[in-house]
Amino acid sequence: MTSTPKDLLEAIVEIRKQLCVLHQQLVTNSLVVWTAGNVSQRVPDAELFVIKASGVRYETMTDDDMVVCDLDGNPVDQFNTVDRKPSSDTAAHAYVYRHMADVGGVVHTHSPYATAFAAARKPIPCVLTMTGDEFGGEIPIGPLALIGDDAIGRGIVDTLSNSKSPAVLMANHGPFTIGEDATAAVKAAVMVEEVAKTTLFADVLGPLQPLEPAVIDRLHDRYQHVYGQ
Amino acid sequence: MTSTPKDLLEAIVEIRKQLCVLHQQLVTNSLVVWTAGNVSQRVPDAELFVIKASGVRYETMTDDDMVVCDLDGNPVDQFNTVDRKPSSDTAAHAYVYRHMADVGGVVHTHSPYATAFAAARKPIPCVLTMTGDEFGGEIPIGPLALIGDDAIGRGIVDTLSNSKSPAVLMANHGPFTIGEDATAAVKAAVMVEEVAKTTLFADVLGPLQPLEPAVIDRLHDRYQHVYGQ
Amino acid sequence: MTSTPKDLLEAIVEIRKQLCVLHQQLVTNSLVVWTAGNVSQRVPDAELFVIKASGVRYETMTDDDMVVCDLDGNPVDQFNTVDRKPSSDTAAHAYVYRHMADVGGVVHTHSPYATAFAAARKPIPCVLTMTGDEFGGEIPIGPLALIGDDAIGRGIVDTLSNSKSPAVLMANHGPFTIGEDATAAVKAAVMVEEVAKTTLFADVLGPLQPLEPAVIDRLHDRYQHVYGQ
Amino acid sequence: MTSTPKDLLEAIVEIRKQLCVLHQQLVTNSLVVWTAGNVSQRVPDAELFVIKASGVRYETMTDDDMVVCDLDGNPVDQFNTVDRKPSSDTAAHAYVYRHMADVGGVVHTHSPYATAFAAARKPIPCVLTMTGDEFGGEIPIGPLALIGDDAIGRGIVDTLSNSKSPAVLMANHGPFTIGEDATAAVKAAVMVEEVAKTTLFADVLGPLQPLEPAVIDRLHDRYQHVYGQ
Repeated sequence: MTSTPKDLLEAIVEIRKQLCVLHQQLVTNSLVVWTAGNVSQRVPDAELFVIKASGVRYETMTDDDMVVCDLDGNPVDQFNTVDRKPSSDTAAHAYVYRHMADVGGVVHTHSPYATAFAAARKPIPCVLTMTGDEFGGEIPIGPLALIGDDAIGRGIVDTLSNSKSPAVLMANHGPFTIGEDATAAVKAAVMVEEVAKTTLFADVLGPLQPLEPAVIDRLHDRYQHVYGQ
Repeated sequence: MTSTPKDLLEAIVEIRKQLCVLHQQLVTNSLVVWTAGNVSQRVPDAELFVIKASGVRYETMTDDDMVVCDLDGNPVDQFNTVDRKPSSDTAAHAYVYRHMADVGGVVHTHSPYATAFAAARKPIPCVLTMTGDEFGGEIPIGPLALIGDDAIGRGIVDTLSNSKSPAVLMANHGPFTIGEDATAAVKAAVMVEEVAKTTLFADVLGPLQPLEPAVIDRLHDRYQHVYGQ
Repeated sequence: MTSTPKDLLEAIVEIRKQLCVLHQQLVTNSLVVWTAGNVSQRVPDAELFVIKASGVRYETMTDDDMVVCDLDGNPVDQFNTVDRKPSSDTAAHAYVYRHMADVGGVVHTHSPYATAFAAARKPIPCVLTMTGDEFGGEIPIGPLALIGDDAIGRGIVDTLSNSKSPAVLMANHGPFTIGEDATAAVKAAVMVEEVAKTTLFADVLGPLQPLEPAVIDRLHDRYQHVYGQ
Repeated sequence: MTSTPKDLLEAIVEIRKQLCVLHQQLVTNSLVVWTAGNVSQRVPDAELFVIKASGVRYETMTDDDMVVCDLDGNPVDQFNTVDRKPSSDTAAHAYVYRHMADVGGVVHTHSPYATAFAAARKPIPCVLTMTGDEFGGEIPIGPLALIGDDAIGRGIVDTLSNSKSPAVLMANHGPFTIGEDATAAVKAAVMVEEVAKTTLFADVLGPLQPLEPAVIDRLHDRYQHVYGQ
């Protein structure tokens, strides 16, 4: 690469700042402890995304801990003034960005209620209007995939390509969520934990009363097109 | 409408301020995440009420995000300096104000323990003196009603008209609560979650030991007439 | 009464201040919501105790909301510059102070895990060394007693007189705890919720493994005599 | 002892400060209430460690409440300007430091989810990739050991010597964790509670789907060698 456009540099500065705020919201919403969890955001009009560095504590995190990577998940030195290794989940995020052009943000947590469904390898059934609104049906289970190659990324993409849901529960691992940007993906991470929690409590009271597919479609359609400003 | 009385304008300013505070208490009491949940308050001596705008985040909410509506749920431009679409639950709130003259405040949340009972379509049984005090008996389940017409509002009014309870658990959806003003309705939203949580934990230990109707009546009567300053 | 000793007035000022701090700790430890719960403290060398006013919110509570009462539970005007009705549980606190000379503080909450055991009318079994340390055995269930006369106070005193435990779970109601002063009673209220929570979780995993009486006695004896500064 | 090297004094000052911060993280992560729980750190190149004083409240804790002890658990007056009795769990920490040369930090809590497994005397099965990463397999149960002699320390060392896990759940008591320093031991205390919580929720949904030993080994090996900066 030759000279870097000023617009691109400014976009990266802004994304780093947003990602710091969004990582704190993982903490506020009780989705992560210690260094677990990561948020990434695609850089618009560039073959790049930005992701948390590996093993960084939320309490001391700064913009410098947000690492710019190419779409193969390799850090791009030109943009990273501090030498940081990106999140150990970077390959999974990169795979999603390479294969899902509409995705602008990815989040991974081990939030306990959603991860409980992942550990039991049970999808979260659609028993709440909130689940219909946000996920358009049950929240699916992905395969058991080990870190180290493209298995996790492929499991995410294969599962979400066949679902309206922006969240997948990777078996024995935890939720990955996607969105048009990092904020939307964080929202999905917050909502998957909230519906997991509520559904688990309902399961204790049982038996569950799933919504009809026609009801779910009506909820999802309205919410995606009418809700918000 | 011709000129607006100064008193009415001042009342609306004051209600907007109170509603901002009350929405924050939904957060403090863990009743809502992200943009879920809404509080409204009737404007005394006017055919108006004020409610949260649709899809607004709690962290950035200001008085301007509180939308003045008529009793059909339409925003009244004269009072809304900023253009905001009211909550997608506005029609349900409006229906309650039109049909229950004594109600001055309405709250809706998806608080997880109360919503778990709603998902299992089980009323919260009256096994706690606190439930007797606040709700005068079991907390009833309302119908499965979809957003988009008067079904939710009608379900709330029909259910609460036959109950001492200021809270109804709309099936597969979540609690709606009412009160003489918005503060009382928020109190009922806090209490329904607290008794739902405690009752669900008791159900785990089981079996539940419901209170006798005569005991419940005595608790409810005393609490409504003696408690407080 | 004639003139009031300056020492007594100073003691009351100090107790009011401490009670405000202790009530906030009920909130911090998730033992209460809205206006539920109350802490009282005996005034040393006087036939008096101080207790929260009825229906006061924790967020706006001040020293003036702490009401000085005689041991029959009647407010003593001489010490209360502001006119406040004491907690609706005042009669129960007063009964305890009249009948248990060593008790200097009483706390009542509806903390959800402990109240769940109360609703199921099951004592909290002694399956944790922490329960042995703090409570010297299982935490007992008291009778179902209604507010309005001495029934609650009598149920507390009768149950605790036959137990090493400073906490009793009043049936379908919630925990009352005692201590040599209000701080000790608040500590017992915090600990009863913590052991209730842990024991309920253990019950989910089940079956429970109760400690032997001889083990419990050794734990309790050491903790009461060796722990702390 | 004759004169004390300035380096040693500075090291102790620094450790006291770190231990205060780490004890607050037990509170932030909901691992402790009131005075329960304790963190210690070995002093490098000295036959000493530093531990919390007995019965100290987290809210008022200062560096002076961190007591310097020899490896038999006796306070060393030379380093303690304020007279404080060390934690009642000091003997267990001392035993670990005497018998495990690589351990630089020890933490003990009664965190409720981990302690629930301890009360049911069930190891936490390895059903989460996070458990494989951090603990290398199931988290073992230690013996029922009473305070007062070396029984607890011996139970910790015997159990952990036969496990990759840095955490042991002492039967009916609670978790003890170890690490190369106090920060690593606190991390293990945070993670054991997080996996206990998630696994208990998964157990409610059941049945659990344990990971294969070969999968666990691969996760653990990668995490110990690749994760972080």
